[in-house]
This record gives sequence, structure tokens and C-alpha cells, in this order.
Amino acid sequence: MDKWFTEKHSETINFSIKVSKTLYSTQTKFQKLEVFENPELGRFFTLDDYVMITEKDEFIYHDMIVHVPMAVHPLVKKVLVIGAGDGGTVRELCRYPSIKHIDMVEIDEEVVTVCKAYFPKSTSGLSDPRVHLYFMDGLAFVKEHKADYDLIIVDSTDPFSVGEGLFTHSFYQDCFSALKDDGILVNQHESPFYDHYQKNMKRAHARIKETFPIAKVYQAFIPTYASGHWLFGFASKKYDPIQDADFARWSALGLKTGYYNPALHVGSFALPNYVIELLNQETP
Amino acid sequence: MDKWFTEKHSETINFSIKVSKTLYSTQTKFQKLEVFENPELGRFFTLDDYVMITEKDEFIYHDMIVHVPMAVHPLVKKVLVIGAGDGGTVRELCRYPSIKHIDMVEIDEEVVTVCKAYFPKSTSGLSDPRVHLYFMDGLAFVKEHKADYDLIIVDSTDPFSVGEGLFTHSFYQDCFSALKDDGILVNQHESPFYDHYQKNMKRAHARIKETFPIAKVYQAFIPTYASGHWLFGFASKKYDPIQDADFARWSALGLKTGYYNPALHVGSFALPNYVIELLNQETP
Repeated sequence: MDKWFTEKHSETINFSIKVSKTLYSTQTKFQKLEVFENPELGRFFTLDDYVMITEKDEFIYHDMIVHVPMAVHPLVKKVLVIGAGDGGTVRELCRYPSIKHIDMVEIDEEVVTVCKAYFPKSTSGLSDPRVHLYFMDGLAFVKEHKADYDLIIVDSTDPFSVGEGLFTHSFYQDCFSALKDDGILVNQHESPFYDHYQKNMKRAHARIKETFPIAKVYQAFIPTYASGHWLFGFASKKYDPIQDADFARWSALGLKTGYYNPALHVGSFALPNYVIELLNQETP
Repeated sequence: MDKWFTEKHSETINFSIKVSKTLYSTQTKFQKLEVFENPELGRFFTLDDYVMITEKDEFIYHDMIVHVPMAVHPLVKKVLVIGAGDGGTVRELCRYPSIKHIDMVEIDEEVVTVCKAYFPKSTSGLSDPRVHLYFMDGLAFVKEHKADYDLIIVDSTDPFSVGEGLFTHSFYQDCFSALKDDGILVNQHESPFYDHYQKNMKRAHARIKETFPIAKVYQAFIPTYASGHWLFGFASKKYDPIQDADFARWSALGLKTGYYNPALHVGSFALPNYVIELLNQETP
């Protein structure tokens, strides 16, 4: 009989991926972790029944969470990455020679261990000597750092699971403090379409706006995430994500990217009216 | 027992919508037609088991297929719409006072009859006196017109069903002939992610490029279509979709839109690198 992995995109919408092979399945200290294979998407892994990455489209998410802030900040040397156990964010960061130090803080060591075993492409950056891995709660880690980072990337799970604390006001304030005076915070920012994602999107934006003088939202087409319309938050003390982007500098690096390009960088901040209206709504 | 409608987004990816009520189900002369209700998406209808519109997100598709060309062409008076039995495209066109005449050609009269009964909002424009309905094959209709239209919108089903002839070289040539010297053709252009959609996208673009001097592709987030990443073709004899857009003129019309806005118009043409590469590939 055929086996399918099903993710509930909402209460009444299911997204199902045919499983040609189950490669791994466990309950870690924090969450259910499974690795599957599908003929079209390649390998993919799930946490608590939510798709984290697939080999076919992980480049989209990782391009957009890394190259957008890197095209804006003039000189990123030290980066903090929270979550991101699949390694894709660190892989993209490692392509920048300006970066001298990356702290990656993942709460669940088993995610990294399993991804190293099954996703050699996404985890290829984790052995880079600039990368320092910490297996602990990102909330606690960020509190210990003041004016230390040029860039913080919050590559978390959804706020209805292990990632919950990473969507709170006090966490964003701690990120603010951990950033240098011209630092940038980028986070995965949920999605505008289905109700429970929409609620989390609005709450995250309201809290980031309270903390950072510049708080924008940008979007990407990620086919294996709920609705395919995924958002990222760009929060900053100083730099505007479009006015201060230096595409000549970025292009001179010669990085080949599957999704990101400078025109798309600008276009990704052009949100649909209904999303703008949701983000502007007052939230409790 | 719960009832679900399932659309195959690809051979191994299923998208399932819980059905709270089946409102209508028939086999028309051309295709299977069903109308369902879902608590989150509202009413939706399907043709041959593909979602055509849902009440929740139809505004996205119709905004993008209509307002993009309308912001570019300086004076659209006469429009041909092919397909579009749900009426949403005509509803948006009817908001423009400059438009004096709309021919809408839908092959399957029953689609219009059923949509009028179940989708009063999307079909609200069909009773406008400027709208002339023809129930016949769009291929035959367009052949009879020369230098007649300012704008042709091909709002078809996928090329693997009734819409097949609307993705051929000879059809695009007939559209070219039916357009005035500064006419614009916009068509739904499939999707870049899953293989069979990708193939159709590449083929459509290759054929349009052979026919029109200007052939661009733009995108929208449509959560209930396969992958959520949907494309439209903008083909034109004269106008560039960005250089020739007149957003001051468009904004002066004061149209309230749920998705479209001028910044998004520009952003929607900023395609991801992998889509650009696919569109540039030679196709047989």
C-alpha cells in the first residue's frame, strides 16, 4: 500500500507527499523527527509533522533568508543563527568571505546529527572553521551577548511548536541588544493566508515593530510550505532593505543563486494589499 | 465520514480540501464540473478535478490577469476574454470606464450557468451591458477578428484538458492578428515548480516569444493552485509592461484592489533565477 506523509496546512486543508522511502524516524528530546524520500522532492525531513526542508526547494528559503540582508549590510563579519538545524542558512553564509565568525544555536542536537547523515548538501557548511555550534536554547544564548553581531538570523520552527519563545517581545528585545548599532535581524515570519499562520505573522510583526525602528516584511514562493506564500521579517537599527542595498557590491561577489537576484530582492518587498492591511492591523 | 476533494498537484503530491457541502456535480458536454463548500475557502468549483476558483483567493488571480495590462495600455476600449467562465476577469474589467465593449468567449455554457447560480460575486459583471457572451470555441472566434482588440485575456484551463488549443503557436498568431497595433495579450501561464506544469510553462513561453516582439512573464501567490506559484504571460506589440506602465493614471482611477498595487506590479516581473533559466531554455 502507498505511504503518504500529510501536513495539515490548516484545519481543513491537507498537503500530502507520497513517501517512497522512510529513512529515519524518531522522537527526540524536543520533537518528532522524520526523514522521508519522494521521487519529485528528493529527501525531506519533518518536525512534529511539518515539512522543514525538501531537497528540491530548500534553496529558495535559504537564498532569501541569507542573501537579502547580506546585500544590504555593508560589512557583515559576525553572525548569529538561531535554529537552522538543517544547515542551509549556514551554508549560504559561508559563501561570503567577509564573514569571519558564525555562531549557530540549535536547541535540538539530534536535528543536526540526522541532517548531517541525510542532507549532505544542506549541511555542507557546518564543518567550516568559522562556524561555532551551540546546542542550547537560543533565548538564553542571545541574552548573554551585547552589541556583538552584525546580523542575527532566526531560522526557527513555527511558534506553535519548539520555536514559540522565538516569537516573543522579550526575545526581539534581546536580539536588538545583541546586535551592533547597525545590525540587522532577519526571521522567518510565517505566512499570510491560512488563519493560524496569519495570526502568528501579525503578532510577530507587531512585536518587531515595537522594538526596531525599521521593520519590513518580504516574501518568497516556497511550494512545500503552507499556501506557498512565505514571509520573512527584515528588522534593522539603521539600514533600509531597499534604499541601502548595494547590488553592485553584491553582484561583484559573483555568487550563483538559484532563486535570489537583485531585482527579485526589491520585488520581494512589494507585498499584496491584503498582506499590507493585515500587517498594519493592531494586534492584542 | 468526512468528505475531501483532492487535486493532484503532481504525480506524488496531493492537495486536499475538506468538503463541508457538495453543492453541484455534473458532467457537462466538455468536462466534469463540481461545486463544493469549505469552511475556510468558502465555495469553490472544480473542472476535471482541478480547482478553478475559491471564494477566498479568486481576487488574486483576477487582480493580476486584469490590472497589470490595464495599468500599461493607455486606452483600452475593446477587450476579448477567452475562457473565464467564472466571470471574475470580466468583473474586474467592468470597473474601467474606458472599456466600451467586452467579448467573452467560453466554450462551456454550463460553467457560466452554474457559476451564476453559485458565485454571485465573481459573476457580477456578466450582466453589464458592455459584455457580449459567446458560447463557442475561442480558437474559432479569434480567427474571425483582425486588428479589432486593444487587449486579449486568455483565462483558460490547463493545457492538459479543454484548454489545450489555447496553448498552440497558431492560436497565439491568431491573437496577434486580432489585436490592434498596440494590443496586449495576457494569458494564464501555468507554473514553474512541478514537472508537467513546468513543461507547459516553457512551451507556452517559447511559442509566444516566436509571435510577439515583447513577451514577459509575471507571477502571483495563488495558494489554491499547484505550488502556489502561478505565472501570467504579458505579450505585446508595442508596450513594455514596466517602462510603459502609467501608475499615476491607474491610481487616479481610485480602484480598490485586494492584491494588486503598482509596486507589486513591478515586483511581479522580478522572477527567481531558476524560473528565468527555465524560460530561456530551448524547447522542442
